Amino acid sequence: MTDTLITNTTLLPRAGADLLEHRYVTVRGTAISQIGPMAACPESSGWQVIDGTGRLLMPGLVNGHNHAAMTLFRGYADDLSLQDWLHHYIFPAEAAHVNPDMVYWCTTLAAAEMIRSGTTCVADGYFFSSHAARAFADAGMRAVVAHGIVDFPAPSVPDPADNIDTVARFIEQWQNVSPHITPGVFAHAPYTCSPKTLVQAKELAERCGVRFFIHIAESSGELQQIIEPQGDSPIKHLDGLQLLDKSTTCVHAVWLDEADLDIVAGSGAAVITCPQSNSKLASGIAPVQSMLDRGIPVGIGTDGCASNNSLDLFREMDLLAKINKFKTGKATAVAAAEVLGCATETGAAAIGLGHLGRIEPGAPADMILLDLARPHLTPLYNQDLLVYAASGNDVDSVIIDGTLVMHNKQILSIDVAEAMARVNSLATRLH
Amino acid sequence: MTDTLITNTTLLPRAGADLLEHRYVTVRGTAISQIGPMAACPESSGWQVIDGTGRLLMPGLVNGHNHAAMTLFRGYADDLSLQDWLHHYIFPAEAAHVNPDMVYWCTTLAAAEMIRSGTTCVADGYFFSSHAARAFADAGMRAVVAHGIVDFPAPSVPDPADNIDTVARFIEQWQNVSPHITPGVFAHAPYTCSPKTLVQAKELAERCGVRFFIHIAESSGELQQIIEPQGDSPIKHLDGLQLLDKSTTCVHAVWLDEADLDIVAGSGAAVITCPQSNSKLASGIAPVQSMLDRGIPVGIGTDGCASNNSLDLFREMDLLAKINKFKTGKATAVAAAEVLGCATETGAAAIGLGHLGRIEPGAPADMILLDLARPHLTPLYNQDLLVYAASGNDVDSVIIDGTLVMHNKQILSIDVAEAMARVNSLATRLH
Repeated sequence: MTDTLITNTTLLPRAGADLLEHRYVTVRGTAISQIGPMAACPESSGWQVIDGTGRLLMPGLVNGHNHAAMTLFRGYADDLSLQDWLHHYIFPAEAAHVNPDMVYWCTTLAAAEMIRSGTTCVADGYFFSSHAARAFADAGMRAVVAHGIVDFPAPSVPDPADNIDTVARFIEQWQNVSPHITPGVFAHAPYTCSPKTLVQAKELAERCGVRFFIHIAESSGELQQIIEPQGDSPIKHLDGLQLLDKSTTCVHAVWLDEADLDIVAGSGAAVITCPQSNSKLASGIAPVQSMLDRGIPVGIGTDGCASNNSLDLFREMDLLAKINKFKTGKATAVAAAEVLGCATETGAAAIGLGHLGRIEPGAPADMILLDLARPHLTPLYNQDLLVYAASGNDVDSVIIDGTLVMHNKQILSIDVAEAMARVNSLATRLH
Repeated sequence: MTDTLITNTTLLPRAGADLLEHRYVTVRGTAISQIGPMAACPESSGWQVIDGTGRLLMPGLVNGHNHAAMTLFRGYADDLSLQDWLHHYIFPAEAAHVNPDMVYWCTTLAAAEMIRSGTTCVADGYFFSSHAARAFADAGMRAVVAHGIVDFPAPSVPDPADNIDTVARFIEQWQNVSPHITPGVFAHAPYTCSPKTLVQAKELAERCGVRFFIHIAESSGELQQIIEPQGDSPIKHLDGLQLLDKSTTCVHAVWLDEADLDIVAGSGAAVITCPQSNSKLASGIAPVQSMLDRGIPVGIGTDGCASNNSLDLFREMDLLAKINKFKTGKATAVAAAEVLGCATETGAAAIGLGHLGRIEPGAPADMILLDLARPHLTPLYNQDLLVYAASGNDVDSVIIDGTLVMHNKQILSIDVAEAMARVNSLATRLH
């Protein structure tokens, strides 16, 4: 473990704070140790020094929802209705092509893409989750890896009767093993899991002390599908099954009425919104301003990149702010600083990692440096530009849990060329 | 003038075409001369050779609407209502800070940003237009530079009684002078120009044989403002004044009903849609699928970057496709290949330059090369990924009118560091 000194950087210590010029930041082990003006900067000897001149240091971004292995299906089928896309393209392709090797390499490619675009932490949900966890651990990326549960045969669970036991074994295997990897439970959705399965999945999560994730109220069609036990909305269905609490993350949450929003707020559950995926599949616009008004913790997810098609959270931030201005008819809605919060500390809390997302002494050192000397970031009046003009390509260096995993745009933890070659090779079978 | 040979590239000759592997393309003077498979590639001696291995060659993007000099106001005021933003921030800042030097350097910075993100041609509308034209000419960028007309004192036209004569002199000065610069007329809007001014501006454009641009139906508020001579919609107002024809470009066109769409389609006028600006200012979503269904030529514009805040047309393409899926409720709406057309040949036609936007022998050589060896562009099944995953940062090299203006991400025609320093210096006066 090398201790790191970042010199002379512009610092955004947390979303909504003022930009501070000419700062140094030190990292000892896995944690941020000191922050101050350059006048008080330590001598450089004994440190791994990163020159922050002309750069902005900010908390690493948190991708609250991904199916990372789906990089294989990026762009395989676009501009299709949700049902056509799922049943004629994605489900058959998954049945034929998802296996441990595919999950490892396609997740590795996703990790490379996320690290390059400034994401330091991700909540993933898929199958063969041990292989996804191994990929993130090898990449040095922080991840909540939640194993999927559905009531039909799935890639790593051929008999759905085994789904709870399979996930229990995965959690046991990965809990407290890697400092970067946190296992979790992902019950796919109320239209793919029976009430009994949902309750068992939540009980498993509670018993193991891990987070419970579920896709909910993604499309308008789902409003008709949930009829028991509560009758009139997907959120009320979850609430009736006592699935909503501070350890639950609701993914999508597009079709929520005022009563649903009050239920979620009262329960302490968090929401992950996926603006690009909800747009591309014409699912709708989640009422994020109404969530923020109620104090619901909202994070941002890319969803799997087959329905996006990018894992760049900067794109996601920009879209989140802009579509909520349509949704409300107000240009003041979901302002840039709020969006930055959703992509950092609030988003981290929404996946159960509330200690992340701030640059302060004692906090885990998950940080990114952006190159500011670029035409599209000139001039820089304030942090809003990170939402409305920056892109993942502006990220220059990435530190996760105190380790430098990307420097000057070179990823140090992954053989990116090999990951691309492996996924390209797998893709030739889909052409 | 150096003749150029691009070798071994993946070629997208025009929007909607198939991707062709292992192609060569030659440029003689300002035009594309030959295209073929590598087996038939000419010997390399005598050519400026660009290695296209691992790269995709496509037509340069056309930004159909910009106020390029507004880079000075990028991020100066965000998340505000249109009226608050205009009257309390932008108009006072423009009154205080717009001058010939500002227009030259801020337009130069915009040109650098556009070239870096793959835009080879722009339609600009602002004041002190000779200085904008000079900036684009110096940058080697193709531009339609349309001089603004309003009925109140403007930065380069202190007495509005001079507005038609001022623009006439600008057109005379720049017509047929630079091969890259085409002058034009920009009547700001029906709520800032009287019917008499609008008619005089259109007559000027006709007399000079240049294109007529106008902002129209941008926000819902405008629906109440246009009461004469036709009474019931901004488009009918323009139609009543006989301003709509094949030489007119309607910018924004958000609030059009079915009758308005039929009028525009029947007139032959073109539309430029500005998805990011219309989103950020909460103006609304233009009915682009309905325009395409009627055969209206639709191009894409960034608008000035104060209301965006980026001039990257790749961001604009992605958003155009996605918001129209919301607008229609259909994931099939405004598909990726259609969007690519709007950003290339259809967009060029929409600003009067219909000879641009295709890679074919005899066409002007406006082309861009993208680096494909990147995680977020892996795998590449088809051209949709250019809309849904690529960004301006993927652009590696740019040729405009046969001249290599960017190579391996280095802009050859502009001193980018000086442009950034100049604009940063101007920006200190606004802090």
